[in-house]
Amino acid sequence: MDIRRYLEEKKTVVDARIDEVLPRAADGIYAAMRYSLFAGGKRLRPILAIAATEAVGGSPKDILSVASALEFIHTYSLVHDDLPAMDNSDFRRGKPTSHKMFGDATAILTGDALLTMAFELMTAPEATKGLDPRVLQQVVCEVARAIGTEGMIGGQVADLDYAGRKPSAQELEHIHQHKTAALIRTSAWTGAVLGDSSPGQVEAIRGYGEKVGLAFQIVDDILDEVGEEGRLGKTPGGDREMEKATYPALFGIEDSKNKAKILIGSAVGELKEFDERADALRGIAEFIVARDF
Amino acid sequence: MDIRRYLEEKKTVVDARIDEVLPRAADGIYAAMRYSLFAGGKRLRPILAIAATEAVGGSPKDILSVASALEFIHTYSLVHDDLPAMDNSDFRRGKPTSHKMFGDATAILTGDALLTMAFELMTAPEATKGLDPRVLQQVVCEVARAIGTEGMIGGQVADLDYAGRKPSAQELEHIHQHKTAALIRTSAWTGAVLGDSSPGQVEAIRGYGEKVGLAFQIVDDILDEVGEEGRLGKTPGGDREMEKATYPALFGIEDSKNKAKILIGSAVGELKEFDERADALRGIAEFIVARDF
Repeated sequence: MDIRRYLEEKKTVVDARIDEVLPRAADGIYAAMRYSLFAGGKRLRPILAIAATEAVGGSPKDILSVASALEFIHTYSLVHDDLPAMDNSDFRRGKPTSHKMFGDATAILTGDALLTMAFELMTAPEATKGLDPRVLQQVVCEVARAIGTEGMIGGQVADLDYAGRKPSAQELEHIHQHKTAALIRTSAWTGAVLGDSSPGQVEAIRGYGEKVGLAFQIVDDILDEVGEEGRLGKTPGGDREMEKATYPALFGIEDSKNKAKILIGSAVGELKEFDERADALRGIAEFIVARDF
Repeated sequence: MDIRRYLEEKKTVVDARIDEVLPRAADGIYAAMRYSLFAGGKRLRPILAIAATEAVGGSPKDILSVASALEFIHTYSLVHDDLPAMDNSDFRRGKPTSHKMFGDATAILTGDALLTMAFELMTAPEATKGLDPRVLQQVVCEVARAIGTEGMIGGQVADLDYAGRKPSAQELEHIHQHKTAALIRTSAWTGAVLGDSSPGQVEAIRGYGEKVGLAFQIVDDILDEVGEEGRLGKTPGGDREMEKATYPALFGIEDSKNKAKILIGSAVGELKEFDERADALRGIAEFIVARDF
């Protein structure tokens, strides 16, 4: 399977849906939402949901609205994390961040609007006709949990708490598991549970997502240390300057790379009972760890 | 019907549910969420949902989780609106605002967490067992719309846009309808649609909610102008100082009072086909306009 081609194809489908649901506007809140949504995101979370639903024989079309909502959520988290009161980042993916473009007030409201619209997209009756409302309810609840105080927000709280002092390995894993892995795990899980899956399959894909999510954050930390500026879209070493908790800071580059590779091997191992319809999930896992080093 | 007693009883029930779902903590994000949730809110939106479900013969117990979620949403909107980048308010209901107590970063995350937890509460399977998942899906979608870019957030965007210049009467009504009335209308609608209601009843209660919501904001504007500081919990005239768009600024106090009273009369008129089970809805409407002048 040509995983780069698969990722490109699915990105096109997700981009088209995002473009379709978001009104076009020259300025105002929709322009700000569109700016951040189309600032170069790879659509990893929606694509994981789609690949997971394919792995269990589900219909990618049926879950496209829910999958796209995951990108709205991811984008909201970036817009708010970048704010001056939070990480105070001026650039992301080579472009000025939302508050640099539109001001702090609009950036706060843009994040709020992206998060709110995600829940609208997940539940819009027209766009979710093929799904069982009871399972969809479970998905909305699980997504909310994954990005709430026991998930992504909890991770961001811990991350801000630790800036300036060195967390233990356990604390660092806690931060990464919550801040990044929870939504990535739940994205894969969402695709699986909305497909025609068995409980065993759902559990396997949840395990896969958990490990892929953690590996993804470790690779991100490594790239922040060693990446070239042009490729990264931001100044390398930014995390270190902020004295942020990262894997390379705690374990060094080599051990971090090894940890990521072991996690990816283990993630692919979770899929051993799946047939070739899970090849995209396998390819995505390997692509994450291969992508830039 | 003793409406003050009714409001107190229902507030106790809603407060108990909020207390139950929110972990207790001495500090951190839960402490900040709890601080703002228990800073003196009247629980108008949850109580409207409960009263609306009673009016159509539904079970208040079944919708308590969904109703409480509406208070989480309202509180999130206050925490974010008060931020320095937005309205920059130091006090609300006589207490320091979230960012004054916990700092800007925590206040942003607290708002995010309140909004996110609202969607968790609306969909938590255990707490919504008595509800039809298909109708619940519709409720989640409608609530998201009511508080999104075409609702509450849209109103806040417009409100910030107009600060410093005088909007027309039409523009002011647009702001109020979106910023305040949309969530109040949807709160009443939510209780009705989740009860055992006919489409005609749902429409009537939506109309009631729309008018009550607008009247509520007009009364709020008036109180900001004429209220005593102790009762208001903030300095009167704050809106005028910020050159915010308000009814009294545009029409004067007397005309604003009359407009609110007419709206309330019209809201109660929407309920003419309902029996005495809608007395709480009628009482709430009259209480809103009578509350402080």
